[in-house]
Amino acid sequence: MEQRVSLITLGVRDLPRAKRFYEQGLGWRASGPATAEVAFYQTGGMIVSLYAAEHLARDLGQEGTAPPEPGAYRGVTLAHNVPNPQLVDALLHEAQAAGGRIVRAGAPMDWGGYVGFFADPDGHVWEIAWNPGFDLRDDGTLHLPG
Amino acid sequence: MEQRVSLITLGVRDLPRAKRFYEQGLGWRASGPATAEVAFYQTGGMIVSLYAAEHLARDLGQEGTAPPEPGAYRGVTLAHNVPNPQLVDALLHEAQAAGGRIVRAGAPMDWGGYVGFFADPDGHVWEIAWNPGFDLRDDGTLHLPG
Repeated sequence: MEQRVSLITLGVRDLPRAKRFYEQGLGWRASGPATAEVAFYQTGGMIVSLYAAEHLARDLGQEGTAPPEPGAYRGVTLAHNVPNPQLVDALLHEAQAAGGRIVRAGAPMDWGGYVGFFADPDGHVWEIAWNPGFDLRDDGTLHLPG
Repeated sequence: MEQRVSLITLGVRDLPRAKRFYEQGLGWRASGPATAEVAFYQTGGMIVSLYAAEHLARDLGQEGTAPPEPGAYRGVTLAHNVPNPQLVDALLHEAQAAGGRIVRAGAPMDWGGYVGFFADPDGHVWEIAWNPGFDLRDDGTLHLPG
């Protein structure tokens, strides 16, 4: 299996609410095919989709299973890296103003970075990170050192 | 917030086991800083990290919270798109041989694609997808139509 991720699917309980959060709230723009069940966002060379959680459960053969509660620990986070620590705080506040929940305010990390977390309305957790040890390029791609 | 994802963190209960699955099993190669708690994989313009689940919980202010059971519905999946339906089955079998679990065997979808799902040893679910409506380029990036 090649070392790449093509698409991330976030199961959502209320697709219009989720779309409002990412589009009106964070400024994202959907493209591609959209239905009452799914919305797609081009994110660099990959795609994020918001997809009705009950349909994702059905696709996985777990029909009728509810997604985790918004505050549940899911064991997975998405990160959005930024070029300076001030932007960490700014984006956390932007997410909060859009209806997200700050899970942990921006704080210095023992490895030298500055990081905070917010949850979207469905509880998907985003890490907003300034990591001076990684190479965040002007095109938005992030690269490991070495 | 710009429309991009920099890094995906997968919380794992047993980092050496997770590394074996992705490296010896799927053929991925780690790079960047590695510790007993974390391993990083460059995946195109973004990064996947395997990170001790108890440390991710601590980072989120949920110290002591166990990650979901491996079979639990987490409401989120990662997809790896491939250029033909045969590769869907081949990669599902590769993942199974590496210690993953086939969640749903490859099957045609009503929207015209061919999709299957496997779970890694920690229960993170990957969708292996052939989607003739999306543009999977030679460099491994995936693009929405239009």
